[in-house]
Amino acid sequence: MLDEQVGTWLDELASAAPAPGGGAAAAMLAAVGAALIAMVCNLTIGKPKYAEHKDAMLAALVSATELRAQAASLAAQDAVVFLAVSDAYKLPRDTEAAKAARAEAIQVALVGAAGVPLRTAAVAAAIIGLAERILDGANANVLSDVAVAASSARAALEAAVVNVEINLAGLRDVDGRATLRAELDRHTPAGAAADRVVAAVRDRVNAGQGG
Amino acid sequence: MLDEQVGTWLDELASAAPAPGGGAAAAMLAAVGAALIAMVCNLTIGKPKYAEHKDAMLAALVSATELRAQAASLAAQDAVVFLAVSDAYKLPRDTEAAKAARAEAIQVALVGAAGVPLRTAAVAAAIIGLAERILDGANANVLSDVAVAASSARAALEAAVVNVEINLAGLRDVDGRATLRAELDRHTPAGAAADRVVAAVRDRVNAGQGG
Repeated sequence: MLDEQVGTWLDELASAAPAPGGGAAAAMLAAVGAALIAMVCNLTIGKPKYAEHKDAMLAALVSATELRAQAASLAAQDAVVFLAVSDAYKLPRDTEAAKAARAEAIQVALVGAAGVPLRTAAVAAAIIGLAERILDGANANVLSDVAVAASSARAALEAAVVNVEINLAGLRDVDGRATLRAELDRHTPAGAAADRVVAAVRDRVNAGQGG
Repeated sequence: MLDEQVGTWLDELASAAPAPGGGAAAAMLAAVGAALIAMVCNLTIGKPKYAEHKDAMLAALVSATELRAQAASLAAQDAVVFLAVSDAYKLPRDTEAAKAARAEAIQVALVGAAGVPLRTAAVAAAIIGLAERILDGANANVLSDVAVAASSARAALEAAVVNVEINLAGLRDVDGRATLRAELDRHTPAGAAADRVVAAVRDRVNAGQGG
C-alpha cells in the first residue's frame, strides 16, 4: 500500500479486484489516525507553552509511529488472508474426502482472516488511547486534529469489528468463535472513548467562538 | 494527493508541515468511503442473482465515482485555504490601519477555510446516502464493505464538522456564522444514518453465524 500512488490505491479499492478491500481500508483509516496523532505531537513538542507536556508528547509520537507501521503491515496481510479464504472455497468437492478437506481448509482460512482485523481493532483502540492521552496537553492550534484522529481511528475500529464478524459468521468451531469474540470485545469500548474525545474537542472549540 | 505515494502522503500528514492536515485527512476518509461504495457496486453489477438491482447499482457507481473526485479535489483545496488563513495572521499590525486590514483579511480567509470542510461534510453525507441506498441490493459477499464505507464516511463527516467549527470559532460576523452553521446542520443527521447502516449490516452478518 505505502509504495502505491494514492489515486491508484483508491482506484484498486473501487475496482472489482479481490484486494484491496474493506480490511485494507480499515487499516488505512487507522494509519490516517496514527499520522494525525504524530502531527499533533510534532506541533506541540518544542513549544515553550507546552513544555510540561513534552515527555508525554514524545512518548505518544513514538507509539503513533509504531502503530502506523503496524497498520500499513495489516493492510498487506489482509490481502494475503483474504486470498487464502478465496482459494479454500475453490478447492475441489468431487468426493466426500475432498469435501471434508475443503471444509477444513475453509475453517483454517477463516480463523486466519479473522486475525488480521482483530489486530487492526487492537491498533485502532491503541490510537484512540493516544488521542485521549494527548488531548489535554496538545497545542490548541491543532486541537481539532486530535478529534479527526479519534474519528478516523473509531471508523477503523468499527470497520475492523465488522470484518472480524463476517469471518466469525462462517466459523463452525463454537469455542474458537467465542475466544475470538471475547478478544474483539476487549477493544470495542474504545469506540465510546473516541466519541468522548471528539465531544471534548468540540466543547473547547465552540467555547472559543467569536474569539 | 492522488499523485503522491500513500507512504509519502502519510509521512507528510504526520509531519509538522502545515499541509496536509486534518482537512485533507477528512477528504481522504470520504474518498475511501466512496471507493468502497464503487467496489460493492462493481461486485454486484452483472451478477444474475442481483439483476433487479442493476440500475440502482449503476447509478450509485456513477455518483460514488463523482463524489470520490470531489473529495480528492477538496483535499487539495484544503491546503490552499489553510495557507490563506496562515498568511493572513502573518500580515503586519504595526499601525491601526494595518491592524484593521489584517483583521479583515483573517475574517475573509476564515470564511474560505470553513467552506472547504463544509463541502467535505456534504460529500460525506452524500456517500452515506449511497450506502443506505445500496444496502438492500448489495452482493451479500461484500455486505461488510457497505458498513466500512458508511463508517469511513461518518468519520469524514465528523472530522469535517470539527474543521468547520474551528473556523467558525474565529468568525466575528454573527450572521455569517449562523448561515454557515445552518448549512452544516443540514448534513449532520447523516451521522445517525451511517450508524443505522453499520447496525443493519452487523445484524445480517451475525444472523448468518455458524453458516
